[in-house]
Amino acid sequence: MFGGIKQLLIGRPKKTRELSDERLSKLKALPILSSDALSSVAYGYEAILGEIGLLGVAGLWLGLPIAAAITLLLITLVLSYLQVIKAYPGGGGAYAVAKDQFGPVAGLIAGSALLVDYTLTVAVSVTAGVAAAASAVPSLAPHTVMISVCCVIVIMLLNLRGINESASVFMWPTYAFIAAILGVEAIGYFHLLLHGGHATLHTPPPSFEVPKGLTIILILRAFASGCSALTGIEAISNATPQFRSPESRNARFTLCMLGILLAVMFLGTGYLTFSNGIQVHANQTVLSQLAATYLGHSWLYYFVQTATFSVLILAANTSYSGFPLLAALMSQDKFMPRQFAARGDRLGYSNGILSLSALAIVLIIAFQAQTSALIPLYAIGVFLSFSLAQSGMVKRWLSTKPKGWQWRALINGFGALLSLIVTVVFSIAKFAEGAWIVLILLPILISWSLRIRKHYNMISRELQIDYNKHRPMTYTPVAIVPVGGINRVVNNSISYAKSISDNVLAVYVGFSDEAIEDMQNKWEEWDPGVRLSCLRSQYRSLLKPLARFLSSVEFKEETPEHITIVIGQLVTKHWWHNFLHNQTSIRMRTWFLFRKDIVIATVPYHLND
Amino acid sequence: MFGGIKQLLIGRPKKTRELSDERLSKLKALPILSSDALSSVAYGYEAILGEIGLLGVAGLWLGLPIAAAITLLLITLVLSYLQVIKAYPGGGGAYAVAKDQFGPVAGLIAGSALLVDYTLTVAVSVTAGVAAAASAVPSLAPHTVMISVCCVIVIMLLNLRGINESASVFMWPTYAFIAAILGVEAIGYFHLLLHGGHATLHTPPPSFEVPKGLTIILILRAFASGCSALTGIEAISNATPQFRSPESRNARFTLCMLGILLAVMFLGTGYLTFSNGIQVHANQTVLSQLAATYLGHSWLYYFVQTATFSVLILAANTSYSGFPLLAALMSQDKFMPRQFAARGDRLGYSNGILSLSALAIVLIIAFQAQTSALIPLYAIGVFLSFSLAQSGMVKRWLSTKPKGWQWRALINGFGALLSLIVTVVFSIAKFAEGAWIVLILLPILISWSLRIRKHYNMISRELQIDYNKHRPMTYTPVAIVPVGGINRVVNNSISYAKSISDNVLAVYVGFSDEAIEDMQNKWEEWDPGVRLSCLRSQYRSLLKPLARFLSSVEFKEETPEHITIVIGQLVTKHWWHNFLHNQTSIRMRTWFLFRKDIVIATVPYHLND
Repeated sequence: MFGGIKQLLIGRPKKTRELSDERLSKLKALPILSSDALSSVAYGYEAILGEIGLLGVAGLWLGLPIAAAITLLLITLVLSYLQVIKAYPGGGGAYAVAKDQFGPVAGLIAGSALLVDYTLTVAVSVTAGVAAAASAVPSLAPHTVMISVCCVIVIMLLNLRGINESASVFMWPTYAFIAAILGVEAIGYFHLLLHGGHATLHTPPPSFEVPKGLTIILILRAFASGCSALTGIEAISNATPQFRSPESRNARFTLCMLGILLAVMFLGTGYLTFSNGIQVHANQTVLSQLAATYLGHSWLYYFVQTATFSVLILAANTSYSGFPLLAALMSQDKFMPRQFAARGDRLGYSNGILSLSALAIVLIIAFQAQTSALIPLYAIGVFLSFSLAQSGMVKRWLSTKPKGWQWRALINGFGALLSLIVTVVFSIAKFAEGAWIVLILLPILISWSLRIRKHYNMISRELQIDYNKHRPMTYTPVAIVPVGGINRVVNNSISYAKSISDNVLAVYVGFSDEAIEDMQNKWEEWDPGVRLSCLRSQYRSLLKPLARFLSSVEFKEETPEHITIVIGQLVTKHWWHNFLHNQTSIRMRTWFLFRKDIVIATVPYHLND
Repeated sequence: MFGGIKQLLIGRPKKTRELSDERLSKLKALPILSSDALSSVAYGYEAILGEIGLLGVAGLWLGLPIAAAITLLLITLVLSYLQVIKAYPGGGGAYAVAKDQFGPVAGLIAGSALLVDYTLTVAVSVTAGVAAAASAVPSLAPHTVMISVCCVIVIMLLNLRGINESASVFMWPTYAFIAAILGVEAIGYFHLLLHGGHATLHTPPPSFEVPKGLTIILILRAFASGCSALTGIEAISNATPQFRSPESRNARFTLCMLGILLAVMFLGTGYLTFSNGIQVHANQTVLSQLAATYLGHSWLYYFVQTATFSVLILAANTSYSGFPLLAALMSQDKFMPRQFAARGDRLGYSNGILSLSALAIVLIIAFQAQTSALIPLYAIGVFLSFSLAQSGMVKRWLSTKPKGWQWRALINGFGALLSLIVTVVFSIAKFAEGAWIVLILLPILISWSLRIRKHYNMISRELQIDYNKHRPMTYTPVAIVPVGGINRVVNNSISYAKSISDNVLAVYVGFSDEAIEDMQNKWEEWDPGVRLSCLRSQYRSLLKPLARFLSSVEFKEETPEHITIVIGQLVTKHWWHNFLHNQTSIRMRTWFLFRKDIVIATVPYHLND
């Protein structure tokens, strides 16, 4: 039955050789690999406003220099990653670069940071997408948690089915979003030119004075929040081998396009937001307010909101290729449980997909689908992995010293330094708001991973055999059959026990003296050719008296290497009939298996009805 | 670990002979066995007002004749149950009487009705108790669902620990409640005498006119709701053997006392409620309003509310002796899964206790802890079982014909008739409000129970053996060992397989041709003296290729009666280490056990670390 539901939801299993290997054109790669980065425009500037909004209208202009600083950071990162693409045409994720240059532990740090980041990308993108939808359709507002969770579940099911990420349908949300934002900007700047910026504005543009209550920490916090707009720009460098030939060149071209688009969209909407005096509003995203300013509630406004929602959901979806793949890589390096490396029925890494969904849902519920509450957890992981990847590049240039290594090292070194500064600023400025969660979680994750690797290494050592020394041996088996009465199940079990051993003993556990005497009499009458031992249980438990009995058998001198407990198991025809039977055999099996070095042989008795 | 938490919550296991057999004095029996019936005073009259309140203030007087009719019904039932006590000194629950007189199916109907009733008693009493608490402490009002669920969980844990129901501490809530109600009545009637009823009243007593909109169905509904005040009066007749000698006489005396007290408390508070013009209020129980009228918010008021809360929680607790015991009885009669008949660590019927709690919690959450919403489901079960028990008594008198059988049959017949009328009236009048749930649930429960009995009977026939015909036989065992590589676990499993059989075959399932070739080479190198078969799996599944392979083995002519699959199981030292290993062996075991007539032998390999 479970199998049926599973197949209905995710489809028939696929053969291993059905794994496809399609390449991406630049036209397709841009929208598909950039949805995460570009969609950040939907919440990046709003995150800045969320901080400087505390200063009131007088401080709104501060958003502009902060956005400019973030754009400079963007340019540095794009330049840095252009180098990564060139150096690692095989796909240079932060995990690979850090592992390659600094060894497995640095790789592990970058990997853990990225796993945290992927999880937050899902939570942030989905909640931001649902916020965009709720801005357009206010009646959705009270149900954002529920809707966000449902979105994650739908994305999860699609990924368990295995979606072809390079399918053309996934191009459109990103292109639609780019068109929508550039369209709003075109209208906005046209208005500014025509009317000097006063025609469609809610409020006159605020003056550029230093507002009261301005502190350095506030500016740093606003900057740190705004850096969430830069998440996702590493995606292209990770996916270099998926590009059409010449891979490296095409990937670099696409990254440049991404950088230009992101800068234009982020700064462009930022200035319009400022010149209209738009502030953060509980039930309306900043972008929705901006679109409504120029488009009213026409169908164009709804187009903008739909495109925003779609690109954010698509951005969440990109984490579903990143997380499971990274988890599988780390699992192959023994840093994660090996289940993460197994491909599911539809060839996706199902365990990674399920874990990512579960974690994202927990985050969405815990933070009540508030994007602004999730932002403080975001970006630490991203910038930490940026720092490691860029430092790794610097080390590479210094050791290989190719042509122009000096300026290459300089660019990457600058990128690494800026990323590290952002990481530190973020950790301090956002510590109390939630960054502490990530700062605690990361070391825990890393120490777990190290212990997991230690465990796997230890086991593979312990289980290793010397082909000449270790060979199967045989010994005389002893079989013990716990019996609860005299019936066909018992007859079946004793037949089996007598077939595998000449040394069979039946054991009965009685709750009262009368029950034991009664059983002894019946046994004598039946006389199956096997001796019966009776045990008295004061606590109505079967397991403990049996365990004591086995201990006494084990300590006899002539003990063989293995005792077999033969357990009869009634197998009902319908699974729900199991509720009508004490599952003593299952409990007995589990109990003994984990406590004693005893073989458990389960002899099924299949009922006819 | 689980065992540790369990012992912390419910205490150390108890020996079977620790079962106690304490008898109750009349002084103790009254409060302990009557808490359910007497506590109904807390919501009975309010349930009437909930219906006639629709007529406005002009209809309030209608509560009085309805309460009087219910009191007449009470007298009839008390007289009827006095006879039950005399006839069944061994404890004449409706299940026992109906089964005895009309056979098992009638018993089953009464039993199912009572199980539903016990569940509702918990839900209704707890929610009414929490409503009483929230009336006194308004800040609790928004959290009634949560508090009610917590109350159920606390009662459940206490019962899993095994509380001594006859402990003196359980006398006090009932006596305190009796004192509180009689005290309020004393003050109330003193006022009425002294001031002609006008001194402390909120409103002048309404006139006795026929209000507009009065319909017969409304009166019937109010009557039906009010009958919830009569639930629990059968408790004494069920518990006759627990009384001190002379049991029957003491039980009858106690039942008379209960009848008198219930009538005085119910009618007394009813008239005072009317004369003060009190109506149903969302955040204040009627009883709380009445107490506040005379006591203000003095400590005496809080005493009344505390006593009400306590007696209602105690009433819920009485279901925890009724439900599990009845479920155990029905389980012994094969009407319920046999797990209900097993005593837990602390000698209580744990499965019954857990089921009752789960069902009550579901009801509380589904009905949002609204006592008035639960009342329409209540009382059908009670009065259905009353009818069956009383009809059974009539049949008994008619067949045994002892001295005075005519008037005895008359009393019980009248009781049966009235109970049946109430059941029918209730089913019709309350159908749409929730009675339909019970009317659908009961037949389902009954049909399940019949199917359960059929299943058990079928199995006991199928498993029965003829001592002379059925005796253990032996045969040549064949052992198949699935292997995933060459290591100590495999060495261990093959050693065992060779010890129990001379006919051993190792099977390897590979996901690619290279993996299979690699394994074959290694196997030849190791040469364990066992042949290896290799299977190719296209879908990365181990189970299906193995199953196909087994089918091919089974259909060979020289097949023995049992094939044994020997599965190596890695046993880690810490339970959480299991998350680091594919639980292939467990899945394989479960899969084959339920599909094939094959013995599964699990050979543990205990890791040192």
